[in-house]
Order: sequence, then C-alpha cells, then structure tokens
Amino acid sequence: MNVVITNPARVAPDIVAGFAPYGVATVHEAQGRTGLLSSSLRPVFPGAKIAGTAVTVSLPPADNWMLHVAVEQCKAGDILVVAPTSPCDTGYFGELLAVSLASRDVKGLVIEAGVRDVAALTQMGFPAWSAAISAQGTVKETLGSVNVPVVCGQQLVHPGDLILADDDGVVVVPRQSASAVLKQSAEREAKEAQTRARLAAGELGLDIYGMREKLKQKGLVYRPADTAG
Amino acid sequence: MNVVITNPARVAPDIVAGFAPYGVATVHEAQGRTGLLSSSLRPVFPGAKIAGTAVTVSLPPADNWMLHVAVEQCKAGDILVVAPTSPCDTGYFGELLAVSLASRDVKGLVIEAGVRDVAALTQMGFPAWSAAISAQGTVKETLGSVNVPVVCGQQLVHPGDLILADDDGVVVVPRQSASAVLKQSAEREAKEAQTRARLAAGELGLDIYGMREKLKQKGLVYRPADTAG
Amino acid sequence: MNVVITNPARVAPDIVAGFAPYGVATVHEAQGRTGLLSSSLRPVFPGAKIAGTAVTVSLPPADNWMLHVAVEQCKAGDILVVAPTSPCDTGYFGELLAVSLASRDVKGLVIEAGVRDVAALTQMGFPAWSAAISAQGTVKETLGSVNVPVVCGQQLVHPGDLILADDDGVVVVPRQSASAVLKQSAEREAKEAQTRARLAAGELGLDIYGMREKLKQKGLVYRPADTAG
Amino acid sequence: MNVVITNPARVAPDIVAGFAPYGVATVHEAQGRTGLLSSSLRPVFPGAKIAGTAVTVSLPPADNWMLHVAVEQCKAGDILVVAPTSPCDTGYFGELLAVSLASRDVKGLVIEAGVRDVAALTQMGFPAWSAAISAQGTVKETLGSVNVPVVCGQQLVHPGDLILADDDGVVVVPRQSASAVLKQSAEREAKEAQTRARLAAGELGLDIYGMREKLKQKGLVYRPADTAG
Amino acid sequence: MNVVITNPARVAPDIVAGFAPYGVATVHEAQGRTGLLSSSLRPVFPGAKIAGTAVTVSLPPADNWMLHVAVEQCKAGDILVVAPTSPCDTGYFGELLAVSLASRDVKGLVIEAGVRDVAALTQMGFPAWSAAISAQGTVKETLGSVNVPVVCGQQLVHPGDLILADDDGVVVVPRQSASAVLKQSAEREAKEAQTRARLAAGELGLDIYGMREKLKQKGLVYRPADTAG
Amino acid sequence: MNVVITNPARVAPDIVAGFAPYGVATVHEAQGRTGLLSSSLRPVFPGAKIAGTAVTVSLPPADNWMLHVAVEQCKAGDILVVAPTSPCDTGYFGELLAVSLASRDVKGLVIEAGVRDVAALTQMGFPAWSAAISAQGTVKETLGSVNVPVVCGQQLVHPGDLILADDDGVVVVPRQSASAVLKQSAEREAKEAQTRARLAAGELGLDIYGMREKLKQKGLVYRPADTAG
Repeated sequence: MNVVITNPARVAPDIVAGFAPYGVATVHEAQGRTGLLSSSLRPVFPGAKIAGTAVTVSLPPADNWMLHVAVEQCKAGDILVVAPTSPCDTGYFGELLAVSLASRDVKGLVIEAGVRDVAALTQMGFPAWSAAISAQGTVKETLGSVNVPVVCGQQLVHPGDLILADDDGVVVVPRQSASAVLKQSAEREAKEAQTRARLAAGELGLDIYGMREKLKQKGLVYRPADTAG
Repeated sequence: MNVVITNPARVAPDIVAGFAPYGVATVHEAQGRTGLLSSSLRPVFPGAKIAGTAVTVSLPPADNWMLHVAVEQCKAGDILVVAPTSPCDTGYFGELLAVSLASRDVKGLVIEAGVRDVAALTQMGFPAWSAAISAQGTVKETLGSVNVPVVCGQQLVHPGDLILADDDGVVVVPRQSASAVLKQSAEREAKEAQTRARLAAGELGLDIYGMREKLKQKGLVYRPADTAG
Repeated sequence: MNVVITNPARVAPDIVAGFAPYGVATVHEAQGRTGLLSSSLRPVFPGAKIAGTAVTVSLPPADNWMLHVAVEQCKAGDILVVAPTSPCDTGYFGELLAVSLASRDVKGLVIEAGVRDVAALTQMGFPAWSAAISAQGTVKETLGSVNVPVVCGQQLVHPGDLILADDDGVVVVPRQSASAVLKQSAEREAKEAQTRARLAAGELGLDIYGMREKLKQKGLVYRPADTAG
Repeated sequence: MNVVITNPARVAPDIVAGFAPYGVATVHEAQGRTGLLSSSLRPVFPGAKIAGTAVTVSLPPADNWMLHVAVEQCKAGDILVVAPTSPCDTGYFGELLAVSLASRDVKGLVIEAGVRDVAALTQMGFPAWSAAISAQGTVKETLGSVNVPVVCGQQLVHPGDLILADDDGVVVVPRQSASAVLKQSAEREAKEAQTRARLAAGELGLDIYGMREKLKQKGLVYRPADTAG
Repeated sequence: MNVVITNPARVAPDIVAGFAPYGVATVHEAQGRTGLLSSSLRPVFPGAKIAGTAVTVSLPPADNWMLHVAVEQCKAGDILVVAPTSPCDTGYFGELLAVSLASRDVKGLVIEAGVRDVAALTQMGFPAWSAAISAQGTVKETLGSVNVPVVCGQQLVHPGDLILADDDGVVVVPRQSASAVLKQSAEREAKEAQTRARLAAGELGLDIYGMREKLKQKGLVYRPADTAG
Repeated sequence: MNVVITNPARVAPDIVAGFAPYGVATVHEAQGRTGLLSSSLRPVFPGAKIAGTAVTVSLPPADNWMLHVAVEQCKAGDILVVAPTSPCDTGYFGELLAVSLASRDVKGLVIEAGVRDVAALTQMGFPAWSAAISAQGTVKETLGSVNVPVVCGQQLVHPGDLILADDDGVVVVPRQSASAVLKQSAEREAKEAQTRARLAAGELGLDIYGMREKLKQKGLVYRPADTAG
C-alpha cells in the first residue's frame, strides 16, 4: 500500500544546528563508522555542506510523481531523501522542484538517481547529492510512499533522521541517537584539533599515536636502501 | 568505404542562435524526450553551454587521424561530434586540435572517448563533453569517415544536426525538425517561467498541476505519524 | 615480509624542477607513451599540478596504518604513492595526514583508493589524485611495506621515481630515465609551441603534418553532400 | 556495540517449504514489487534455487572474522546474508566455510562482497550469490554483529526473514508477511499458468490483457511500411 | 508521435538462412568492422546462436507495454530488438513473453535492458542477449514505437535488418547489404579455414601473413634473454 | 624501443607440474597474499584450470600485431600474458590464434582486454581469462614488445614467471620464488585438508581456530533475541 506519513517526529532543530561545524567523516567516525551512504552519491557542485532532517521518498523507476507529494510534507530545515525501487539514473529532479523546496526553506536533496538543471541548481545554491546527472525526464503515473523507511545509498533512512552531507558524501544519524552522536562528534573534533596542531608542528603520527611499539611487535623491518642504484 | 562528405546542409544560423536561452533538459522535453546522449558524456569543465551544427566523425579505436581531416570540414558555428567504432577511453583530442578548431570559430567538441590537456582547454574556454579524461595518445594509421551518420552516446547524429550541450549533458535535434523544436522549446520555457514564479511564491505543484484528484483515485493514503516514537 | 626501505635514491631535485613547465600528456608522449597511470585516478580538486619523487606504500585493503609509517620516510619534494593489495575505495587519507605531510613539504598524494576531508584538502591546497572519495574510515591492524616497488593505476612505480600529476592524470618516469625524458619533453614542447602558433593562425594540421598524400594513398574519398536534403 | 543475537524468530519451516515452487520474479511481484536485492548480486554457478531464513552478518571491509561467529548461529534451513560496512570485493567466503555451513544443513550464502573457491563450491553444490569472485583473502581483526538488521544489495534484511534466490537474483520477504506473500505467490503463479497456456496456444497478450482499447486511447497509430525500400 | 509500422520489408529468408554457418566475429569483419553492438550485451545462457530479421521496439524506461504490441508484429524468423529511451536495467522480458514469441517461431531477443525468468528461458532454449538480469518488474503506462529505427548497443538498427547473435555478442547487417555481406562472409570463412589448417599444422602467422619484413621495417628488435638470471 | 626477448629463463617444468593440485586462492595465500591479478579478469568458460610459464606481451590499444610475434616465442607449457598500454576491450584474440598456440602446446591466455570466438575456444577447450568478450577486431599497425615485464590486472609479470589460473582468477608467482611457494602451498593445503575434515564433521571454526577468547577480549556480546516479535 502506498502511504504518506504526515508530520513524523524529527531530530530537534537545536541538535541539527549543533552539527554545523562537523564534517561527514567526523560524524561517521563518531557514531562508530556506521551510517555512511554509498560513495556513488556525489555532490552536484563542490563546496556545499548541509545538515537537516530527512523527509523520505520511495518511488518507482523513472517516475517522479511522488516528489510533488513529498514537497508538501517538507518543513524548513528538512532534506529530501529519495530512493527509487530499482536502479535508475533518470533526471528525477530539476530547477522547478528546487525552487519549490527552496520556497519552504528545505536545505537540499539526496537522491540515488539522476538530477538535471544542474547549472540552475548551482546558481541558486540549492545543494544536491545524486548518483547521476541526466537531462532525461520522468513520467507521473505510479504511486510511491513518503516518510516510510527507505534504503538509500546502501543505508536505511527513517523519516526525521538527521542527514549530514558535504564534499565527502552523505551520512545518516538515526533520530534517537542524534544527541549522543553530536556529543561524540564534538569530542572527536576537539581531539582532532589538538592532533592537527601537533602534526602541523612536525610531530609524527607514529609518536603521537604511540605506534612504534606495536609495529615492532608485528615485525616491521626498517632497512636502508642499497647504496648502488 | 571511407568518405568525407564536404559541405553538408546545416541547421540555419538564426535557428541555432535561437536555442541560446534554452537548456538541454528543456529542449529534450520539447522534442518529446528524444535525442538525449548518454549521461556518461560529461563536460570537461563546468559552466559551459553551446549550441551549434554537427560535423560528425567516425574513427577507429585509439586512432585520431580523422580528426585532422575533420578540422578542414568545420565552419564557424560547428561542433565536432566524434564516435569511435569501438569503446575506447584514449585521449583523442587535446590543446593543439582545440587551437586549430578555435581558429575556425568552432564552438566545441562532443566525443565518446577521452580528451587530454584539460587544463589548457579550460584556460582557453574551449568546451568539450567526453566519456573520459586520459593523457594516453593515439596513432594515425587507419581511415574513418567525416560527415556520415554516427551513433554517439546512444543517439544517431547526422551531419548538420543541431547539437546543444550544457552541464546536464548533450542533446541532438535533427536538422529537419530544428525549427519546430525551437518553437516548442520557447513555449515550454514560457510555461515553465510562469510555474517557476508560482512555486517560488510557495504554491505547490500538487495544486498547480491539479494532481490531488488523480492521487486519490490511484489510492494514495495520508496517515499521521504515530505519536509515540 | 613487511619492510620499510629508508632513504632510497631519488631523482635529483634540479631534474624534478625541470619538469615544472610540462604537462602529463607531454611527458607521457616524450617517453614513448609509457608510464601513464589509469585514467580512473582523478584529481580531488581541479587545477593542481605537481612534480616530485615517489615514496611508495603497499598496504592492505581498508587499513591505513602504513601511511603513518610512510610519513616519516617522506622528505621535502616527495609525493606519496599508495596502492592497496586489493581494490578498495575506503577513505584511507584525510586532513590530518595531509597536515602532517604538508609540514614536511611533501607535494601531494596519488592513491588507488579513497580519500576524505576533501573540502579541507581543497582549502589547504594539498593536491591528491584518487580512485574514489569516501568518508569511510580504515583500521590500523595489518602491516604493509614502504618504498618497495608497487603497481598503482596499472603502472609499476619504484621509490624515487619521478611522479608528475595534473588535470589529465598521473605519469611515472623511472628514476634512471628522468634526465633523458626531461630533455625529450623540452624538445616536444618546443615543437608543439611552433605548431600551436601555426594552427592558431589558421593553418591546417593536414598541411603542417603533410597528411594529404598518405590519406590519398589509403583511399580516402571526398564527396560533396547531395544537394537535396 | 557489536552484538550476536542468538536464536531470533524465523519464518516457520512449512512456510519456507511452501515457497519452493516459486521463482524470485514471481515472489517479488506478489509482494508488490518490493524486496528485490540489487541485480549486482549474481549466482556463483547457474541453476541453483534456494529458500531459507536469514542469519544476518554485518562486518568490516576485508575482514571475515564474524563469519566464523555466524556459523554457530546457523540452523538447518538458514541462509547466511552478509553485508560489509563499506564496499569491498575481497573473497570473504570459500570452501572451508561452505563445508562448515553444509555440515549444519545451511542452504546457501548471499553476500555483497566476493567469494572464492568457486570450483569447489560448484562441485559441492553449495549455492552462493555474490557481488564478485576474488581469491583475495581477508583478515580476522575487527568485530561486527550477527543477527542485526543489515542492508544488503540495497534492501533491508532482518534476521529470520525469508530469503529466496535463483538465477534471476535474490528477494527478501519480511518474516511477518511471509505467510501472506506465499498465498499471493500461489495466486499469481496459478494465474500465470493459465496465461502461459493461452500464449503458448498463440493468443496475444494484447487480447488476453485487453490492451487494445487503452492503446487506442493513448493515441498509438498503426501504419503500413512504405512499399518502396 | 508513437507509431507501429506494420509489415516492414525484411531480409529474405534464404539469405538469413545462409548466415547460419558464420559467427558474429566473422560477419562483423566481413562487413568492414561495422555493425557490432556494444559488448555489454551478453547472452543469458551460453551456446546460443541465432540469425533473424529485426522487429524493433523503442520504449520508455521501466515500461514494457510496447513489447506486447510488438509480439503481434513478429513473424517466424524474426528477432525482437529492444531499446529503452534511457538507460534502465529493469526486467522487461520474462517467461510469458518468451512463450508468446516462441509460439510465433520468433528466434530470440536482443535488449539493452534487463530480462528475468532466466532459468525458464534456459530450459525453453529461448535465447536472449541483454544488458542485465533483474527480477524487477515494469509498468504498462506509456507508449513507444514498433518498427522504427532504434539505437541499441550503440548501433543503429532498422526494422527488417539482419541480426546475428552468438556467444561473442550481436551484430546488425543492414537489409540492403545483407546479400553482399553474406558473400563476403563466405569468402572470409573459406580463407580462414585454410589458415586454420596451416596454423594447426604448426605454421606461424608471421609466415602465413608475411609479416616478418614489415616488422623489420618498423624496427622490431630480437634479443636473447640475459643468460644470468 | 620495441623488443622481443627470445628464450627467457622460465620456472622449471617439474615445479610448474607441482602446482597442479593447488587452486589460485591457496597459492595466493601461500605467498603471503601477493600476486593476485584483478578480479576483473574472468574465465571465458567455467571449469578451466592451468599452470604454466609466462610469455608476456605489451601492445598498443586495439592492435594485436604483436600476438603473432609472440606465438613464435611460445613453447610447450607457456601461458600468453597480454597487457595493452591503455585500457581497451577490443577482441584481440580468437580462434585462429588459439589454434596456432594449441599446435605449440601452449596452455592458455591471460589478457587484460577482449577475446572473441568464445564458442570455438570453449569447444577446443583452449582456456582464456579476459577482461571482456567482444567480436570487435584489431589492426596490425604498431609495434609492441614480447617478454618484457608487463603490468597485467594490477600485477607485475615477468617473462618466465609462473601463472596459475582457475575459476577464482589468476595469480602470478615470481620465477625466483616458485619453488618456495610450491612448498608453502603444499603445507597450506595439507593443513586445510585437516581443517576441512573437522568442519565437515561439525566442529566449529570458533573452536578449531581458538577464537572464542579473542572475541571476548574485543568485547563481543551475545544476547538472546527478544521473545516478543
């Protein structure tokens, strides 16, 4: 049965806002290396970075009808997460849908399919992560569902989950754990800042992380190059 | 037999010029969703947009001899459309050929193979859409043909056809229908401009396109999220 | 056995410096079309161009422990060349390792695997050529080797070899032949400069390269387009 | 936290047995075109067909330690469903693990990674669906989890779900709906048997499905070929 | 406009029958290395080999409605050649359509998309060459055309053209040239039979083809291996 | 410079013969998980297994001239290992070359490119591992080299090295270490035979390999499934 779930619970706005300083790699590490969407989802233009709450869409191949249904379910701060039921690189999403989402202060799009009008999206600054860029259009014939759990980029995404996307890719943080992951991200970032300063000053990771002993135990051999050559 | 067809009929320059405001997605829609080249052909640098008339080249894998032959057949306003007879990502095209084409006011290149010298192409502003970027060179041993019909990016391209390329990809408009497609593109664009304004003002596609009734007939169900969660 | 070879012979700094004006395509041609790494290795951001000496790393899939070992072996002017023992798109390399390498004046990274923190790498201007971008992290459990011969992007790279990378890709020049290839690159570039000037002035490659006679011998036919159409 | 869930609820054996006559395509249709794993998962040898209950494994790239843990959790009639946390084509599974599973009457393997010893698997008749074949080995260093929900081939699989695999691919049927889907599969198959008989007798789908009127309404035109040609 | 062209001219049955002894590679060579469909089209089961006349279908992504229309246009000896208007690996074709085509003595299918029910197709011996195997179903909503020129596997196919398919792939021979290509194929095969016999007897291609002199002119050097080593 | 090295040192025939009982996975493990060629090289037909000494060929894209030169350098027990200088899926190798090699008792082919006439190769039982199957032909215009070191499938292969290929893929064993690797393979196989017997009898790998303690130390938790569900 095709269904639209209205008004799902979402990660609270202040928690979403808290993720702003942290990148996808940091958050992915902070939640125990889980939640990273497939690296085949790439940003349509470089330099974008967004955090928001997922409105999810499951729809048929080459049919974008449900995107119009989904727009109405979006609130300020949401990110549309779209997964076709079979692989399809058709251009589901373009300038008009972006204008409509932007008018509702939606932050961006994650889609395991194609987008088009990328020059317009870039000019508008409406960020999108997609599996393809294609001008090929879609039909509006078959229903799907909005705000049901979807698998997008090999990860399970529930409506209301936190989505974070930047030049490295896209990570999903389950709604229930968003607060904890935020705290872990902050801790990781603080620790990395210290390490960064020491590395920039020329200290070696071998020493900072205390790796020399373990390398020796595993049997790593250092040998000067032959002088002939 | 390998042949060079000299001076094929081309879409008239004023019609080509008329396509300048329209993107690949718009034109592709306007001609009934036909003519779009495979999304594996990507621009070498972002932001380029060209319209022109096709000079076509069919040539062997890893052999770019015929490109030199094709240059002589190009006039101002042409776009070189190149298709190897078997898949090959070798770098057929680089700075020198671009300089030669630019001196003849050729607008760009579409090639289902590799290009190289992309830093130079970017600096010159000579746009190219290709299937690969590769510094690997080619030989000059085997003939091909110029200005014969070719299949490039899964589409049939005749010499003199209109080619439009932007960040979304590449579309071919057959010479005979270019005038009609131009008119349809203008109509589509005008209609989209109106829709864009309404969407920007916050109206929903569901209402603008009158979709609510059809969704209901198909059986779409709206259901509030469980309050627990 | 896993081994770190310390202080291998390297191409001399003045020879490395001599390669600065030449692109990957030119050098690849100058050494007889050899040494080009696979076109699947792409720059993380456009416009970078580096020449340096290889410090090579062979390491397990999804395990970046040896990168920390390799950093210590790097000197100013080196380029880290990294090849996993089986295909893997995990993000082996990110901002912290880049900071560490930059503090030693290492010029960049070539890796047949994934990198992450690409926004930070771009901002720092630390260039990298990789097979993927992925925020997925790696473990530090299994040894590999540093400064042994590795196959990276389908090419054999020895420690101390010259590596040249730009928007076209990456080429390796064996240490022993670097001096000769530098001379050949200069000769090729000088010749191309002349040809470029003639092409820019509107001369045809067909004439500059004297191709017309050979095309005729091979049987190329020129035929005017049908007037009907 | 890494966890092994012991003894999850499973689809009942008589229901599993009921699926034996039906193919993956039939069951996928019968449950509303959901649950089909990505077509990149292919059988290691042709002709195999299995139905069973999922024991799920989530594990790190290039590390098969948890497969040994999972074996102990398998009962007769289970199918091992394995998903790495990042893409990896390493050979996680080979003859020895197959022997161990076969001794427990496990029916087969579905893995979004590589397998090896395929000649032995074929000879034993132990069926496997995998994303790759690779002799590359894995390490045993890092924990994962057994019998947690996993995403495999773009689908969510819970422990105890029904898995059906044949030459067309793999489909998952959620435990709770297995009984209903079995009934729908039987109905669909019965209907298809009738249609098959009519088609074999030369009747046309156009007539059996009553398509002629709808095609006419949509505007399909029939036109004889030109006699010239 | 969507159209069904009825009863197009076809290559004559005796000419089609003449192609039976020749493989795809031979015919492709015999017609000057043209007409070979992309190597991404692979046989669903090994060992099949067919020759027939094309009934072509152009249809939308993930919509197989027009296949039912096309069946009615097929005669004994035809081969269905199917090309979606955008890339799509959905399972357009399965057992029921195969039964229907087989009842009309259609020889097989070539499709740049997915097929399903491959166990049944294999058992029936109904051969198909496809770009994918997928159980994913399609809808029946949108029109396409039958017996119009299509681009399938990077080649232009007209209705009535000769199609030859075997384990090496698929080749199209234009209707007008089928008779000439048959003669050339026979000549090539006769010549190859002689060469085959000489090679089987131990003669070298170097001598049979008289290559030694040309290799010498090009500068090939023979050098014994170092005795040390 | 293009060169043919005649009569390179080869692994001794009795050592080659010794590898007959061992599979690619076993030998790859026995030599420390090195030497495995890329998993993109697949057997043309299933069930083949060969061991032999490498005659290597480096040749241009889409040009198979050097294969004819290489045939003359082959002796009984050799395996032809072919690597184009840039990626190319053209059909370099077919029935005639196989007949010629078979007349010299060459054992098979490994090629990082395409082969054709696969029905004939299968019927002859001439085994080949290739990156593609394509009927597309090649030219004979440009020189390459025979019996120089080549990179094939991401591995360095020297002439005379041992090549082992089966359904799992292809592994290269350097000539100098072949004797040692043979001994290690035998040891590994003996150990695996014992383990296989214990696993077949129902013992668990967890116990045979003594993993339980280490899993506990790493923190693996066992938890019964919820009874509800």
